[in-house]
Amino acid sequence: MKEKLKIGITQGDINSISYEVILKNLAIPELYEPHAVVLYGSPKVAAYHKKNLDLNLALKTVESANDAAYGAVSVINCNEEDVKVDLGQATKVAGLAAFQALEKACADLKAGLIDVLVTGPINKSCIQSESFHFPGHTEYLEEVFADGQPGLMLMVCDKMRVAVATGHIAIDTLPQQLTMDLIMQKARLLNRSLVYDFAIQRPRIAILALNPHAGDDGLIGKQEQEVLIPAIEQLQQEGIYCYGPYPADGFFSSDKYKLFDGVLAMYHDQGLIPFKALSEGRGVNFTSGLPIVRTSPAHGTAYDLVGQQTADESSFREAFYLAIDVYRNRERYEEMYRHPLRKQHIEQVGDLSDLPVQEDEI
Amino acid sequence: MKEKLKIGITQGDINSISYEVILKNLAIPELYEPHAVVLYGSPKVAAYHKKNLDLNLALKTVESANDAAYGAVSVINCNEEDVKVDLGQATKVAGLAAFQALEKACADLKAGLIDVLVTGPINKSCIQSESFHFPGHTEYLEEVFADGQPGLMLMVCDKMRVAVATGHIAIDTLPQQLTMDLIMQKARLLNRSLVYDFAIQRPRIAILALNPHAGDDGLIGKQEQEVLIPAIEQLQQEGIYCYGPYPADGFFSSDKYKLFDGVLAMYHDQGLIPFKALSEGRGVNFTSGLPIVRTSPAHGTAYDLVGQQTADESSFREAFYLAIDVYRNRERYEEMYRHPLRKQHIEQVGDLSDLPVQEDEI
Repeated sequence: MKEKLKIGITQGDINSISYEVILKNLAIPELYEPHAVVLYGSPKVAAYHKKNLDLNLALKTVESANDAAYGAVSVINCNEEDVKVDLGQATKVAGLAAFQALEKACADLKAGLIDVLVTGPINKSCIQSESFHFPGHTEYLEEVFADGQPGLMLMVCDKMRVAVATGHIAIDTLPQQLTMDLIMQKARLLNRSLVYDFAIQRPRIAILALNPHAGDDGLIGKQEQEVLIPAIEQLQQEGIYCYGPYPADGFFSSDKYKLFDGVLAMYHDQGLIPFKALSEGRGVNFTSGLPIVRTSPAHGTAYDLVGQQTADESSFREAFYLAIDVYRNRERYEEMYRHPLRKQHIEQVGDLSDLPVQEDEI
Repeated sequence: MKEKLKIGITQGDINSISYEVILKNLAIPELYEPHAVVLYGSPKVAAYHKKNLDLNLALKTVESANDAAYGAVSVINCNEEDVKVDLGQATKVAGLAAFQALEKACADLKAGLIDVLVTGPINKSCIQSESFHFPGHTEYLEEVFADGQPGLMLMVCDKMRVAVATGHIAIDTLPQQLTMDLIMQKARLLNRSLVYDFAIQRPRIAILALNPHAGDDGLIGKQEQEVLIPAIEQLQQEGIYCYGPYPADGFFSSDKYKLFDGVLAMYHDQGLIPFKALSEGRGVNFTSGLPIVRTSPAHGTAYDLVGQQTADESSFREAFYLAIDVYRNRERYEEMYRHPLRKQHIEQVGDLSDLPVQEDEI
């Protein structure tokens, strides 16, 4: 296993709280030592924010992630020399600067110059251009690292891991988009991520209902009976421990959600409302299902907080730690299953339920 | 003002945790003194649950609420002599027993024999019959007390008051049901309730968006621009302090929701998920917009907890207190506006913003 990692960070939107939450964390060397931090952005803009925040922190400009020293923070210039900061404003200049940093970081991640990536928040409107025509980071990363194959956006905090079956779509179109295939595909991705990224051998997954009261036996909508229950049954037959559909309001009112390793919500607000309400500002967005590791804080640009130095840097810190954890879990998983025993050997041991699952079973 | 009230309680579902949460509270005389408690149900079933719970509590059977003593708990028999309890089971017998208690309590409430009503949880499926063909208490009470005119289900806890624009409907049918008229009607009811029932002179109301990210300027759904924003503008012109539409996930992640006296969610789960997640089991369901006062605990029958004596009675207690509070607030409001000053007198006083609002302005 690699002892020291190179951790890439993108600057995100230069007019937002992104630099504030990044630099407040990097001012604590204990956070990243013994690893190397590579900040993709602009040395000038980083220095400007550092001065505003009155932080004591050495930022060394380097040409390539190869030159980044361990136990230190290096900055790679991805922007024009004269990139203009307009604190709290949504500008095209900031959108381009965010994209350039992201593009360079992804190239380095692909080339293996950095091991994981933590992205700063972007303004999804400002960043749009001919090169970037995606609803957000997740879809861009899917394009770059998986030829557009869907990954899974997973929201993670110490209390829960929530994935959503559908993302940024209008409620109008939700019922027709929510097919059995889609639900099964997302549940499999979630299951795989819990095993591979979070080192949970036999994950338990809760599937939330689409309709109020899980449709009350068909009185309030048919999707539970026609789509969700058949999907759950088929997933169970595949060996995935998934249960439901649970009425979403009651699910988060008791401690029930704590019994599960992962929750699959049917739509954006259904998953994000309870996650944000209960994660107390420490939530992390993890793009699972891709060959690379990328995390980000769950918050956005928060222009209204810029310059007040009151932004909470906890979410970014959790994103930083989670990226390392997932990297380590994947390393261990691959090590563990490099030379798996063949089935007939395992069957002689006795109680199968405690044995690690074979990779081909997942 | 009436010094002592008569507080009606319905037994709810006799096989559920309803009697447990009721009797645990009534075993504390300080809870209800100096008022009279009138429990609508079955003396035999009440005695059975009391024995199971090993509670020290005097239950006196009376013929009529007129005979109920202040500072004591009286029981009115509404059921057959031999009503059968099947703990934790959904039975038609229990459904009928719940309905008979509710029917009698409503008759007494209408006749003024009791002042407020706190209802125990029912099983909405078991209670269905020729006499009761409603989705729940709320719709039945609307029929009995308002000729079917819609009230407003308001979920109340110390952190927030949440109403929903649409109730127990399938997500399929949500977009077409969510009209400008409906949103305005519900917002007016909410505003009126905050003034009249909660004694807030100038309530601030938040309207949640239907689509993720409030539709991102029309990229994810059109209802924000075509329905919600025009409705909010018209409500503001009517003098209602309402704001939004707010993306629902972010709204409950920060302290933003604490800035508002009431929140109008667009659909069941959108309002109930954050309410239940954040109310810590102390939520109350209040049927506003009716001439009578009725509250209930926000939880249901919880058959899985029956007999373990572990059910949390806090929510019922909050419901009990809220019923009294709302009754008192209405009394004060009516007293205050019995002989309102005419406008020209008020205008001489100076700073208008601190003056009580005229009834005809609300």
